[in-house]
Amino acid sequence: MKRFDDRDFDQLRAVKITNHYLMHAEGSVLIEMGNTKVICTASVEEKTAQHLKGTGKGWITAEYGMLPRSTGNRKTRDSSRGKVDGRTMEIQRLIGRALRSVVDMDRLGERTIWIDCDVIQADGGTRTASITGAFVAMVEAMKWMKEKKLIDAIPVKTFVSAVSVGIVGDETVLDLPYAEDSNAKVDMNVVMTDQGEYIEVQGTGEDSPFQPQQLQQMLELAAKGCRELIAVQKEVLGDLG
Amino acid sequence: MKRFDDRDFDQLRAVKITNHYLMHAEGSVLIEMGNTKVICTASVEEKTAQHLKGTGKGWITAEYGMLPRSTGNRKTRDSSRGKVDGRTMEIQRLIGRALRSVVDMDRLGERTIWIDCDVIQADGGTRTASITGAFVAMVEAMKWMKEKKLIDAIPVKTFVSAVSVGIVGDETVLDLPYAEDSNAKVDMNVVMTDQGEYIEVQGTGEDSPFQPQQLQQMLELAAKGCRELIAVQKEVLGDLG
Amino acid sequence: MKRFDDRDFDQLRAVKITNHYLMHAEGSVLIEMGNTKVICTASVEEKTAQHLKGTGKGWITAEYGMLPRSTGNRKTRDSSRGKVDGRTMEIQRLIGRALRSVVDMDRLGERTIWIDCDVIQADGGTRTASITGAFVAMVEAMKWMKEKKLIDAIPVKTFVSAVSVGIVGDETVLDLPYAEDSNAKVDMNVVMTDQGEYIEVQGTGEDSPFQPQQLQQMLELAAKGCRELIAVQKEVLGDLG
Amino acid sequence: MKRFDDRDFDQLRAVKITNHYLMHAEGSVLIEMGNTKVICTASVEEKTAQHLKGTGKGWITAEYGMLPRSTGNRKTRDSSRGKVDGRTMEIQRLIGRALRSVVDMDRLGERTIWIDCDVIQADGGTRTASITGAFVAMVEAMKWMKEKKLIDAIPVKTFVSAVSVGIVGDETVLDLPYAEDSNAKVDMNVVMTDQGEYIEVQGTGEDSPFQPQQLQQMLELAAKGCRELIAVQKEVLGDLG
Amino acid sequence: MKRFDDRDFDQLRAVKITNHYLMHAEGSVLIEMGNTKVICTASVEEKTAQHLKGTGKGWITAEYGMLPRSTGNRKTRDSSRGKVDGRTMEIQRLIGRALRSVVDMDRLGERTIWIDCDVIQADGGTRTASITGAFVAMVEAMKWMKEKKLIDAIPVKTFVSAVSVGIVGDETVLDLPYAEDSNAKVDMNVVMTDQGEYIEVQGTGEDSPFQPQQLQQMLELAAKGCRELIAVQKEVLGDLG
Amino acid sequence: MKRFDDRDFDQLRAVKITNHYLMHAEGSVLIEMGNTKVICTASVEEKTAQHLKGTGKGWITAEYGMLPRSTGNRKTRDSSRGKVDGRTMEIQRLIGRALRSVVDMDRLGERTIWIDCDVIQADGGTRTASITGAFVAMVEAMKWMKEKKLIDAIPVKTFVSAVSVGIVGDETVLDLPYAEDSNAKVDMNVVMTDQGEYIEVQGTGEDSPFQPQQLQQMLELAAKGCRELIAVQKEVLGDLG
Repeated sequence: MKRFDDRDFDQLRAVKITNHYLMHAEGSVLIEMGNTKVICTASVEEKTAQHLKGTGKGWITAEYGMLPRSTGNRKTRDSSRGKVDGRTMEIQRLIGRALRSVVDMDRLGERTIWIDCDVIQADGGTRTASITGAFVAMVEAMKWMKEKKLIDAIPVKTFVSAVSVGIVGDETVLDLPYAEDSNAKVDMNVVMTDQGEYIEVQGTGEDSPFQPQQLQQMLELAAKGCRELIAVQKEVLGDLG
Repeated sequence: MKRFDDRDFDQLRAVKITNHYLMHAEGSVLIEMGNTKVICTASVEEKTAQHLKGTGKGWITAEYGMLPRSTGNRKTRDSSRGKVDGRTMEIQRLIGRALRSVVDMDRLGERTIWIDCDVIQADGGTRTASITGAFVAMVEAMKWMKEKKLIDAIPVKTFVSAVSVGIVGDETVLDLPYAEDSNAKVDMNVVMTDQGEYIEVQGTGEDSPFQPQQLQQMLELAAKGCRELIAVQKEVLGDLG
Repeated sequence: MKRFDDRDFDQLRAVKITNHYLMHAEGSVLIEMGNTKVICTASVEEKTAQHLKGTGKGWITAEYGMLPRSTGNRKTRDSSRGKVDGRTMEIQRLIGRALRSVVDMDRLGERTIWIDCDVIQADGGTRTASITGAFVAMVEAMKWMKEKKLIDAIPVKTFVSAVSVGIVGDETVLDLPYAEDSNAKVDMNVVMTDQGEYIEVQGTGEDSPFQPQQLQQMLELAAKGCRELIAVQKEVLGDLG
Repeated sequence: MKRFDDRDFDQLRAVKITNHYLMHAEGSVLIEMGNTKVICTASVEEKTAQHLKGTGKGWITAEYGMLPRSTGNRKTRDSSRGKVDGRTMEIQRLIGRALRSVVDMDRLGERTIWIDCDVIQADGGTRTASITGAFVAMVEAMKWMKEKKLIDAIPVKTFVSAVSVGIVGDETVLDLPYAEDSNAKVDMNVVMTDQGEYIEVQGTGEDSPFQPQQLQQMLELAAKGCRELIAVQKEVLGDLG
Repeated sequence: MKRFDDRDFDQLRAVKITNHYLMHAEGSVLIEMGNTKVICTASVEEKTAQHLKGTGKGWITAEYGMLPRSTGNRKTRDSSRGKVDGRTMEIQRLIGRALRSVVDMDRLGERTIWIDCDVIQADGGTRTASITGAFVAMVEAMKWMKEKKLIDAIPVKTFVSAVSVGIVGDETVLDLPYAEDSNAKVDMNVVMTDQGEYIEVQGTGEDSPFQPQQLQQMLELAAKGCRELIAVQKEVLGDLG
Repeated sequence: MKRFDDRDFDQLRAVKITNHYLMHAEGSVLIEMGNTKVICTASVEEKTAQHLKGTGKGWITAEYGMLPRSTGNRKTRDSSRGKVDGRTMEIQRLIGRALRSVVDMDRLGERTIWIDCDVIQADGGTRTASITGAFVAMVEAMKWMKEKKLIDAIPVKTFVSAVSVGIVGDETVLDLPYAEDSNAKVDMNVVMTDQGEYIEVQGTGEDSPFQPQQLQQMLELAAKGCRELIAVQKEVLGDLG
């Protein structure tokens, strides 16, 4: 049985990662997953986080934003409202954790990598696309650091990607666009490594609780999706050396 | 092998829920899980959320706070900083989702139940204790509404409780106090219904990715913990009738 | 003539100060005056106020808050409104001044004692209860400092307590609960030392001006109330030695 | 014994109230007390406060500000800091209470009078000068309302003025300029009616507690000062008729 | 004499306007002027500005933002700083004025067109590129309104475009990239109509005052630039009918 | 043909600059242009701007405010709204640029001069009056610095003044009061030096585009106005020596 956009239940949307998308950032990509489009940049600052001063360790932090008309209804700018909303905070904390978990902070040195994920067009899955794209931008920024002799090697332990899964009607499906996401009974985001381990598992059944076996099905779909996304990342990045 | 506080790996801390804790709120409890102490109140407002006006549906929303010296180091007040921090936002969104998922909003009518969870002493697991305690306060507020003839029956579909699990060293453990939590490799919060279904599953391996079988072990411990917490809730609340 | 709660015009409500109320703070009490309940903590920071750096002098500062359902109608959190309201500012400035006035700042050394007064249940007189309770928490924190050899002696010059007085109908009364306070023509708060001297006198006749002799009557009642409160403080604290 | 500026202990500084100081406001004065200069305006809005809608009652509210260089050191603008400081809040609440206490809100009708007190030069006693000047501006605005047939009569029950008193060295003195104020052991502000009754009494002995008889001396000086200020107000305003 | 990027003093950078750039907005373009890239969207809201309610007139308002790494150094998000900076405010007011000046607000009806200009890559001239691009997006949104029968005709009186001019060294030049802009003695932005009239003229000689004849030269260059930009707009938009 | 206030099209309103207006500021004036009245102060801080530390250069920055009843309708305080509005930001940036353009920052040394312009009565042209008055206050502060031996000479390169011009009906006029300004088709502000050079030219035809020759006429009027204002400044300041 096909989905409304003709995909199989376990099929990703068309994925495209355009590397070197902007001229100023040390790393920058445009990631497209179907109609969802996110610009991810990585910026290197020669100063670690406040709480790590003197430890020799670096830090990675992320910010996330949406252009006002990335969505169907115009979204008021955070800057006009004078504060960042709760959903945005949740997402930027998730992106930061996901990337930090695969980086060796000692080898990064007392630096901060700022990740910025800005959604220019939203059609579901913007937070997981942000993680997948930001990983590429981050590695590009590390390559730049290596070239500048700031570091000896890319201090990344493993690739990391993320994908959404959910239950729509009675069907467990992979990579939900907005039309499915807004009708899903269960919504889940999974962040995984190249070795098939979990970095983060977040499932919510706001509209309806879910069974343990449904959780298992979603985790399996997510594993398939993350594997395929890591393959795309590898194609773009080549060997991490 | 015993834990530092002499508990088994699958044992909850001492749980105590004091009902009718404050004089003004329609529902109020003090929940204690070991040294963690949270005041949970439920307040009834005769107005639903903005986006539900005219639908006949009610809303449940939650706010969470910590007294400045609920923690080891004094925490600056959100009101002094002029904004709510990201962790607080995440927690209050989680509490709200958990409670909404078990309430029939049509039968609640166009009202809002405000949940306030204020931590007066923190020793790990404050967000899960908040959910477990807030459920009791919410049901008490609904009993008050029923007595006032605002509703015919308690519009709750199932009990809901929450607990933390994690991996400390190589051990999977239930209900982590701060001493364990701050050393955990993996930290997970699970919200479950009376029927053993999931409302929310959130696991994070910031310091180290985790294996699928570790996820299974944690989910099993969480199920045991939530069952026991629901037993305590039932003792306090009696029959929902 | 008895008051609505059966007290004499010059009688305090039942007073109870529970010392060592919380596990983390250097000093902490729960003070109850009738139904008014306030948690007062004192936290020691090894840094004096900005404007006292290099002077050898310490500082004492206070913050005050109310839990949302400490009151009859739910009070919006200051953190949600993004700013502290005027009444709160007035109260925390009053608490800070009252405590600073009885401490020898030179002997405190370049430290700050942070006082936090959080009302968990309000029934009139929260600001005066906060001062009376906070004094105990502050002295406890100083005992902790003495034990840690940070100071040689408790640098307190005299006990300090506070009480409300007012004119309800034609009657001058001591220690007003909310039911009286909301109908009072004149509302007055008095902060006094062990020697019967004034630290602060604040009387307001917003609804009706008051005569010099009414002021005298109120001051006498306040002196009686403060004396009795200091007796309770002495019982809790023992010898300041 | 003369004071540093050659005044007697019970002597006011030179007082001057310039009426109709600005062209746009319904009432506006410049009040000068020695070097302290405050512009006070009263603005009429055809809408009462939110909580009084439908009661037929009016409201009076006050705001207070200082020009950045009204003081010896440039004061950062509240608008740059993004919030009003505690001292400012205290003062504007005091001004509002003082004026409301002498106005018959029923006869004002469902209107708001906005009082603005802006200090252009500060030399002590700005809050009491603000009250004394604002009363004149308020009455002028009421005269304007009467002329416009919005009200039948000036709804003021009595004149109101305010003055500072204090203890400097061992001397009780009236109307303290900054040089005295900054060295005062006790600082007190008194707001009084034409009949010699108190509207507000606020005395603070932050640097040193004070005796009951010192309080009496200060209250007597304040009564003399307020009487003299009301005489000036009467000269400016004429008959309230 | 050629400029560093090989252009003549009176030559624009390569201009490209991609229409229908995003899927959700009623009008959206990507405008590129050399390396400067701005996404401009126009959103239609069925509600006019507050001050125009009941007048039958519409409103056009603009917001402007820069992605954090649109610039050489990462720019802190306005939402993190909690307020919009002065430069941004100036720019969004300029864009709004420019577009309102060419629209017949009566024929627009009681609606608001929200213009959003988000710079994804900055290399000088972002505010003028925003105006030129936003005009196209606005007209597209009006075409959408016409198709939806909300309006009968496109209520635009004339095309409008904008360009920067300046004095670099001794040379008067058109359309300055960052490398020139940051060294310019005089910086000027000109907004013009299809008929060669001025909407806005803003010239600043912060580093050095400028002569009347230099002003004339800059105005002539600007006229040439705006004419060429309007030609590009016409190519993209076709007949306004 | 005379204007509504009996002036010729090219005539300034009555100008008066009262020097040494306030006692605390290093430089302070009251400037009156007709009914427009602005207090301008200059404050010297022994610290340069953040971005100039270590360069030996000083900085000049300006802030602008309006008293709430400087205008016909009471204006909400920026401090109540929690932020500075866009118009205010534009104006304070303009004042800062205008003054910086005529000062030799190297000779000022690593200091900041804070300019504060506070409008106490507004009747059009407040921003240009602010510049004209602030220049005098700034020079006075520099004289104070010279007296204190902080600098050897007044580091000013040329006088600077500012004036508004506009098109009202078909007439090009100088120095518009509010009654003309609110009906003007074109509104222009010009800042000029003693040598007749431009510092800033800002013309806006929001209600109607304007022709090149209209621009010329306005520039000529502005030059006449600025010359006359500089004559007044010279009278007040005497020789800059």
